[in-house]
Amino acid sequence: MNPEPVEIAEHRRLVMSLATASATVTLPLDQCLGLVTAEPVTTRLEVPPFTNSAMDGFAVRFEDVSTATPQAPVRLPVSGDIPAGSPASSPLEPGAAQRIMTGARMPAGADTVVKVEDTDHRPGQAQVPSAVTIFHTPQAGINVRYHGEDLGVGETVLDAGTVLDGPALAAAASAGHGTLEVHPALRVGVISTGSELADAGAGLSAGHIPDSNGILLAGLVTAAGAQVAEQARVPDEPALLREVIAGWDVDLVITAGGISAGAYEVVRQGLPELTFHKVAQQPGGPQGAGVVGSTPVLALPGNPVSVYVSFHVYASLLIATMRGLAVEGRFGRPTVRATAGSGWHSPAAKTQFMPIRWDGDVVVVPTHRLGSKSHLVATLPLVQGLAVVPAGVDRVDPGDSLEVLVTRGGAL
Amino acid sequence: MNPEPVEIAEHRRLVMSLATASATVTLPLDQCLGLVTAEPVTTRLEVPPFTNSAMDGFAVRFEDVSTATPQAPVRLPVSGDIPAGSPASSPLEPGAAQRIMTGARMPAGADTVVKVEDTDHRPGQAQVPSAVTIFHTPQAGINVRYHGEDLGVGETVLDAGTVLDGPALAAAASAGHGTLEVHPALRVGVISTGSELADAGAGLSAGHIPDSNGILLAGLVTAAGAQVAEQARVPDEPALLREVIAGWDVDLVITAGGISAGAYEVVRQGLPELTFHKVAQQPGGPQGAGVVGSTPVLALPGNPVSVYVSFHVYASLLIATMRGLAVEGRFGRPTVRATAGSGWHSPAAKTQFMPIRWDGDVVVVPTHRLGSKSHLVATLPLVQGLAVVPAGVDRVDPGDSLEVLVTRGGAL
Repeated sequence: MNPEPVEIAEHRRLVMSLATASATVTLPLDQCLGLVTAEPVTTRLEVPPFTNSAMDGFAVRFEDVSTATPQAPVRLPVSGDIPAGSPASSPLEPGAAQRIMTGARMPAGADTVVKVEDTDHRPGQAQVPSAVTIFHTPQAGINVRYHGEDLGVGETVLDAGTVLDGPALAAAASAGHGTLEVHPALRVGVISTGSELADAGAGLSAGHIPDSNGILLAGLVTAAGAQVAEQARVPDEPALLREVIAGWDVDLVITAGGISAGAYEVVRQGLPELTFHKVAQQPGGPQGAGVVGSTPVLALPGNPVSVYVSFHVYASLLIATMRGLAVEGRFGRPTVRATAGSGWHSPAAKTQFMPIRWDGDVVVVPTHRLGSKSHLVATLPLVQGLAVVPAGVDRVDPGDSLEVLVTRGGAL
Repeated sequence: MNPEPVEIAEHRRLVMSLATASATVTLPLDQCLGLVTAEPVTTRLEVPPFTNSAMDGFAVRFEDVSTATPQAPVRLPVSGDIPAGSPASSPLEPGAAQRIMTGARMPAGADTVVKVEDTDHRPGQAQVPSAVTIFHTPQAGINVRYHGEDLGVGETVLDAGTVLDGPALAAAASAGHGTLEVHPALRVGVISTGSELADAGAGLSAGHIPDSNGILLAGLVTAAGAQVAEQARVPDEPALLREVIAGWDVDLVITAGGISAGAYEVVRQGLPELTFHKVAQQPGGPQGAGVVGSTPVLALPGNPVSVYVSFHVYASLLIATMRGLAVEGRFGRPTVRATAGSGWHSPAAKTQFMPIRWDGDVVVVPTHRLGSKSHLVATLPLVQGLAVVPAGVDRVDPGDSLEVLVTRGGAL
């Protein structure tokens, strides 16, 4: 281990050097939810694809109804009926109306739709009438949606690097796409290490603790938009660790534990091709990263709060990049400013990531009276962000302005 | 259809009356990700469960090392070696040290841990030495984590109604739980309706449009933390719609389309046991809700922006409640204040939900020049929130203060 700590930026560079680009794939829309576009998506169709009615009512020529009032209504013969999905069988002749449903294609010759409520026709299921009485002059051209008025052909609907959520996929569908070129789902293997780890809920032998890192990492990886493709718990047996990783077909392995200064460090001993160093941060000082075989491996320290901090400072950035997202800033997303609601000590030589919760709209306080100690797993659900106290600062006083990396929920 | 629109609050009451409570289930932690606790989770173990070392180093009695300096170091015989997971074989006798790893149980008699970097012992893999030289007086009691200092036994780790993410599950594991009592995953069936709907990406016959509502709803349901258990597209054939729903085993059905004032309204005609009415809102006026057989059904209007608005105003509230979450406020989550960056018209008799995007930190503008028209699906990915313009207001002017329901990303 390098005795001099390295800077956060240096470790971040090492981590980001692991980001490999998988070949992109073409997938049907219904397999794309949560994936990321590999190229811009442009309209192949106009949206809407044809001029259609915005209302259930009657398609007319405005000039034929421009004098209608309740006192002097206009009566027109009804020469057709246009359900959505069925084009008009004939153009609209002057002096007539055609019944038309919302979303149905406007007949040639019509320029305005009178909604059914402004006529003598009954809303809802009814036979098409032979004539219709119109009681109000509509605005010319009203209740008509023009082809291409949302977007024309060749316009950008989604940029490359967009997460495909419901609205994005709906837009792609409307723009004429049945498949999209996307980055494949990122398959991550998660390993918690340590001979002290026992099954959650099992009786504990002396010196054992429940494994919480495995499920913590699985949850964080899922929330980061990747897939937990493999998961294992490995005791302090370096050969077993190598064997587990060699048997997996994943894009990235994240381990927790076994990389510190002890005599039994399973990750350090089992994966000697990684780079291990101490980073000038607290918690989460020990860090490792590298490639085993052809698989990128991120080796996080083993204390749960260190896992949480390391995940948000390094792993989420790597995962986002490997998913195809353009990451911005040091943490891959914006930080916010907040005011310290209480004071605490910070190690002057290191950047401190203090787990905080919001106390009102702009004030944050440490989640636990013991501050940034890395074993405080039972209070991890209270953490809403990490206050980033820079190196050179040895204490935070109430009222100090802080940079906060928001990790969940928090101030809206 | 009731010709007089009902209030939003009235429709919300109807929707919320559909919320059934499923029997809760006991599931192992690794099947709980994304589910919601059905009861408070309290610690069965102290966290940490035993007093342990925070560092790799040597467990000592403080009084034995209280004079150590680089010039006058203290040398102690090493009488044991304590890896994590293996309890000490014997108590620490006065005047001795035991090598100890991070997380390992402190031997009886020891009160302080000297980290390996402050000794003559080599960090990392090394044989346990017969004696160790200590160069610095540690702070008394340092590098020791006391049993129960995070939480004691019987303390609350998670409230009932907590979403089980990684940190929550890690805390539950550490607190001694291998299983949790949770609300089961909410199984939702999604139906897009309309004979005009074609497969996304397929060639379009005249009058047809790509189905975008199906994938929109699937994405929104997933983002709301429920499971899309079933999905179908149904043309304007009421009997087929009933048949599809009857064949499903789901907790909730959400439909889009077929509930307006037209002559071919498949949901209105196929599911006459629902209540259909017009709500005093724009877009998304037509709404339906009720129970078919024993299955709650939420019938949303068919225009994509109306689907989006109705989902965020009604469906997300119902889904959250059925998942076991306590919802607060009119929309189930807080709204924010923002300033209008441009002006627009609003129907005075209705609450308007204007799709907006952020233009800077506090200013919002309509997503599309055509405003809140309900067919603007291709620009739906740009929408970050809905400005709620109350009834009685007929125009918004630049600079007006607005209530915004944040629907995605947006202002942190």
